[in-house]
Amino acid sequence: MSLLVTGSIAIDTVTSPHGHAEGVLGGSAVYFSFAASHHVPVRLVGVVGEDFPKEFHQKLSTRPIDLAGLEVRKGSRTFRWSGRFEGDMSQAETVNVHLNVLSERGPTVPSAFADSKTVFLANTHPTLQRDLLKQLDDPRLVVCDTMNLWIMTERDSLVETLGCVHGVIVNDAEARELTEKVNLIDAGEAILDFGPRFVAIKKGEHGSLLISRDGQAAVPAFPTKAVRDPTGAGDSFAGGFLGYAAKKGDGDFATLRHALLHGTVAASFAIEDFSLRRVEKLQRTEVEARAREFAEMLSFDVE
Amino acid sequence: MSLLVTGSIAIDTVTSPHGHAEGVLGGSAVYFSFAASHHVPVRLVGVVGEDFPKEFHQKLSTRPIDLAGLEVRKGSRTFRWSGRFEGDMSQAETVNVHLNVLSERGPTVPSAFADSKTVFLANTHPTLQRDLLKQLDDPRLVVCDTMNLWIMTERDSLVETLGCVHGVIVNDAEARELTEKVNLIDAGEAILDFGPRFVAIKKGEHGSLLISRDGQAAVPAFPTKAVRDPTGAGDSFAGGFLGYAAKKGDGDFATLRHALLHGTVAASFAIEDFSLRRVEKLQRTEVEARAREFAEMLSFDVE
Repeated sequence: MSLLVTGSIAIDTVTSPHGHAEGVLGGSAVYFSFAASHHVPVRLVGVVGEDFPKEFHQKLSTRPIDLAGLEVRKGSRTFRWSGRFEGDMSQAETVNVHLNVLSERGPTVPSAFADSKTVFLANTHPTLQRDLLKQLDDPRLVVCDTMNLWIMTERDSLVETLGCVHGVIVNDAEARELTEKVNLIDAGEAILDFGPRFVAIKKGEHGSLLISRDGQAAVPAFPTKAVRDPTGAGDSFAGGFLGYAAKKGDGDFATLRHALLHGTVAASFAIEDFSLRRVEKLQRTEVEARAREFAEMLSFDVE
Repeated sequence: MSLLVTGSIAIDTVTSPHGHAEGVLGGSAVYFSFAASHHVPVRLVGVVGEDFPKEFHQKLSTRPIDLAGLEVRKGSRTFRWSGRFEGDMSQAETVNVHLNVLSERGPTVPSAFADSKTVFLANTHPTLQRDLLKQLDDPRLVVCDTMNLWIMTERDSLVETLGCVHGVIVNDAEARELTEKVNLIDAGEAILDFGPRFVAIKKGEHGSLLISRDGQAAVPAFPTKAVRDPTGAGDSFAGGFLGYAAKKGDGDFATLRHALLHGTVAASFAIEDFSLRRVEKLQRTEVEARAREFAEMLSFDVE
């Protein structure tokens, strides 16, 4: 199924215990697209400013990512985020944010994309997420992300958006904040009460959970010491997850359960280096090999 | 292989958001024994006081647990622990501890147990762990646990003990404290440098990791909302883990990897109710059914 993503396209500056990267390509829709593009072609919808480097455009062009929905807005500047990871690197500390073009009107879906069947609404204002959705003819599998800011300041609008989607991908802190439940399975079930039929909860180094009307599943993170920059791990997870679901063409429980594995694999590559450095060189054969390795690690003979 | 465990046998008082249990059976060696006994008979070595209730003796007798090494010491009182779980229940807050008999001389291994091949040295003073070990003829698979107290106050003795064992089962906080490494795989590898050839790191609701000289593995926790009392989860994990390894008769990587799964299953039952209430009624068929269910949840077809 055709896969459309809308979200941020960013110029990032990131510091971790393993180094520093200045003015590099980032953004939720970018990480998502790279990850998903190993499963299906991706339609990217987003807005950047005139300052968006040609080189970043070229990086995006190396993958099967349709850039017809990438608007370069005259007189605007690209969204910029600067963050730092310390200690166990489980959470980014935001040093600086310039919303720039993200504070202006949202992106327009090209008419050629209106028939998209699988859609990921990466984190942005929940009203903008619904606006985007209205531009699509008949999406079959719509999944959204969100963040603590909207949970705290735009709860009603967010709840309305949750009523319009089939699935949600959030992290553990967001799931708990949204539902005020401590146990993550309780939290996941409470999210289902808002309307979606499944929720995937990302727990960083601790893996992920799937809570759906049809069952529950969990996978650990792919065990690795090679964590240099966790930026984009969550969006890469979403990209591997939905890219796989789009390829399978449905969102039944067996597909979603396998999607957890493919999301985990995508995230495991994204964190190996700063920005897209690992991911932009990634071959489909490497992705498939790691998926097999991970599946083998999780394969048990029980009499 | 014959399995011997030595550790605490306790009278516990526990409060969690789901209730309160006063003066109930507990202790590391007890939880371990119940869990391991679904795989192999267990030889229990420990000391209680004259106040140890007959009823607790009877509970232990319902399982294939050989009590020849259970000393009821005249004039002594049983170890008592009182704790509280709050919020996400990820850590017990100790309300009260009376070491009682645990502060006296350690237990003696009955001569009939000296031929034990698989041994679990549950958490106690690292010198006592080595003393116990010296009473065994030729153990083949020796695994120990420890706690933050010994890491902080008896580090040299603990390091000596780590040099005498084949494996270690600790929780994430202990692994980090012992090695001063933040990444748990780094921490696990640093523990191997002390001598053991494998370490299993327990992460509570986030599952567990195996780091060994022959490879790494990870499993999530068994997804459950039914968490009433986490007391004994870690020792039950160790019991399922080593019980399975003892049954298989070796400690190669494939066995240890599967042992992670059986440890997880054992822990998932222990937390479902206070004290041994769930575990004492547990049938082997239930244990096997959950192991199969868990293995199925982790089984992926990857092309």
